[in-house]
Amino acid sequence: MNQLETLLPLNTTEHLSDLSTPLMEQVCEAWTQLQTQQPLVHIITNGVANNYVANVLLAAGASPAMIDNPFEAESFVRIASALNINLGMPTSEQMQAMQIAAQTAQHMAKPWVLDPVGYGPALPWRSEMTNQLIQYAPTVIRGNASEISALAGNQVESKGVDSTLDSAEAYLQATSLLEYASCIAISGESDYILSKELNAVIQVKGGSFLQPKITASGCALGALTAAYCAVSNATVGTVAAHIHFAIAGKKAYERANTVGSFNVAFLDELHCLDADSLHQYQDLYITAL
Amino acid sequence: MNQLETLLPLNTTEHLSDLSTPLMEQVCEAWTQLQTQQPLVHIITNGVANNYVANVLLAAGASPAMIDNPFEAESFVRIASALNINLGMPTSEQMQAMQIAAQTAQHMAKPWVLDPVGYGPALPWRSEMTNQLIQYAPTVIRGNASEISALAGNQVESKGVDSTLDSAEAYLQATSLLEYASCIAISGESDYILSKELNAVIQVKGGSFLQPKITASGCALGALTAAYCAVSNATVGTVAAHIHFAIAGKKAYERANTVGSFNVAFLDELHCLDADSLHQYQDLYITAL
Amino acid sequence: MNQLETLLPLNTTEHLSDLSTPLMEQVCEAWTQLQTQQPLVHIITNGVANNYVANVLLAAGASPAMIDNPFEAESFVRIASALNINLGMPTSEQMQAMQIAAQTAQHMAKPWVLDPVGYGPALPWRSEMTNQLIQYAPTVIRGNASEISALAGNQVESKGVDSTLDSAEAYLQATSLLEYASCIAISGESDYILSKELNAVIQVKGGSFLQPKITASGCALGALTAAYCAVSNATVGTVAAHIHFAIAGKKAYERANTVGSFNVAFLDELHCLDADSLHQYQDLYITAL
Repeated sequence: MNQLETLLPLNTTEHLSDLSTPLMEQVCEAWTQLQTQQPLVHIITNGVANNYVANVLLAAGASPAMIDNPFEAESFVRIASALNINLGMPTSEQMQAMQIAAQTAQHMAKPWVLDPVGYGPALPWRSEMTNQLIQYAPTVIRGNASEISALAGNQVESKGVDSTLDSAEAYLQATSLLEYASCIAISGESDYILSKELNAVIQVKGGSFLQPKITASGCALGALTAAYCAVSNATVGTVAAHIHFAIAGKKAYERANTVGSFNVAFLDELHCLDADSLHQYQDLYITAL
Repeated sequence: MNQLETLLPLNTTEHLSDLSTPLMEQVCEAWTQLQTQQPLVHIITNGVANNYVANVLLAAGASPAMIDNPFEAESFVRIASALNINLGMPTSEQMQAMQIAAQTAQHMAKPWVLDPVGYGPALPWRSEMTNQLIQYAPTVIRGNASEISALAGNQVESKGVDSTLDSAEAYLQATSLLEYASCIAISGESDYILSKELNAVIQVKGGSFLQPKITASGCALGALTAAYCAVSNATVGTVAAHIHFAIAGKKAYERANTVGSFNVAFLDELHCLDADSLHQYQDLYITAL
Repeated sequence: MNQLETLLPLNTTEHLSDLSTPLMEQVCEAWTQLQTQQPLVHIITNGVANNYVANVLLAAGASPAMIDNPFEAESFVRIASALNINLGMPTSEQMQAMQIAAQTAQHMAKPWVLDPVGYGPALPWRSEMTNQLIQYAPTVIRGNASEISALAGNQVESKGVDSTLDSAEAYLQATSLLEYASCIAISGESDYILSKELNAVIQVKGGSFLQPKITASGCALGALTAAYCAVSNATVGTVAAHIHFAIAGKKAYERANTVGSFNVAFLDELHCLDADSLHQYQDLYITAL
């Protein structure tokens, strides 16, 4: 899986662009592995997201299990292939489960994805917990531009749990977070994935402008990232999840152009993705950091 | 926004009917403001409703955030434009959050909507909490006929969380609740909105007989009422939310006449509503109290 | 309702096959009663399932109410017609509510369905609670093959909350559970229902291979079983719920062959089922135990 690493370090955008072909081959291999292995993903997420995230992962090929009590968090991380922790609507019991699960994942070297929903001064309880969780070495930190930028120490405005910042602006502010995680993924009109391994940023285009109108889209993307990291390395897994999402979004919008119908079509397209559409629809750019 | 107030008091139905035109103009203006401002709505609701309510608000133009822990309730009400509290499936932590949020909303004069789901003797814990919350001066109290009638002190039967009473019967019993809130909204085959400001009841027709077959429809209507109250006054905001819902329901049923398809079409129609359909489809009646 | 009982005991498969006609008549009667009575079902289920289960029950004709706090569990079981307890994502408060509700249901002889989601060594907290709940004499225990087999004392592997065992293998291992409940229902490619009353196993064919790709399908089936047991006896009620599901799944797949669209069609078909399609589409086999 470390084919890309041997090409590094690279100093120019041009050279990195040449990487997009082998990266896409690895992405296709990750997709195949996801269908074959159907990895068990331990998910601690929020009450808005639970049902949708489970359906997204089932549609995409993974096997989700929402286990968010502190009494089973450790034993379940042990049997799961990856973990996703999302701070969207924390309860006291979930907070305990998050700490135990993150600690166990680090201890057992299982890939795990941290989704710091709502990070910022208006939501201090979860932000403090996020600061603690980040110490357990998440494989990937995934959020919207406002959350990632705030987590990187910038003063940013957000609007509740929605971003007011462009993902293209945020990724430059996020490099410091590579100290904590192998990848930082920022979702937006384009998604940006910072890779410590490649010392590069991968831009994933696609999706649909309707995606932010479907609640818990980002939460589902974080969980799918965990699923892909169970069958691939951090960079390829994170990129694969984002491409899977972006292509399904683009194809869904071709069929259905308003929110209710789009969401139904999106689940269909997540399920129907294959290697051909991965190659045909991918819209990927790589730049050195 | 107080154009209507100057016409009052009115003593006959005929005079009040004349109000429906200026009221519809204000409703259209509220809809435009909702699209423009996309107000941040702090929502504390139940586990059945969370995902659906968030998608309804996003489809309609608002920006929902479900924050239901007691540790962030105060700080989030401070940045939100409106608050919705729904007692559908309370937990102990939610109950604490509800009190803090309601108190903060009253203190900061932010509009807030109370949805007393299941109020009545079979559900004493939430009913006692509702009695406390009502003291924090909700802007609007919204429920089905059984809940509103029980809250007004009548002995009514309900069937779990569903009403056994007609909304047309309940509104006459609900006038005493105007002591606590600016508007009382009762959903049913027709919706009835009692306005303290107008000293009138507004009947909103439309919707579909399939609406009660979609769970959390009423919860979503309560949250949408909060969103509209963030960009308008209590009467216009409450009426606007109910008209928005009723028209989307009516148009959805024209496209899809059974529950699964109807619900998808309903989200589509909530999103596609515009000023033209507001005028064309509204079915509104005003009567003096 | 005890027409079948008088024919027992039966010793051969052939004799039992003859039962399928009267059983189908009872199933049709149960469906009619469900539409007429719209029984109130008290549901304590998980955060993934809440919304979906409520919509499934509404579509099918029942009246669901999710009441999962310990302070209202007793009073609500008293007014409900049946109870469904599902251990998918327990919280400490839910656990207390489950015990109170199960105890009250037993005390008041109300039908109740236990769904031991995730039962097994990887999830010890809920498994211990399931062991306690089973003492309150559930009317029906419903789960997937892994869960039911593990509950019957076998060492089985599961994959998170999904089964790795075939339902056809599991039912032979499950007979010991008839000590605790009147019916044991095992969902899978075919569903198997063990009936203490008939001393027989009923195989229900139908559904769609897409059903396991929709999260909380099993949870919804458990709740629907509770609804049917409110209007029928344990055997007929359990069989009716499984046939209702299987036919809706089969018909939905005729209209929509991928996950998002299938799920919409499934809710439509649950709602549109009638006595004709029950007879036309049923695919039922009875064998003596």
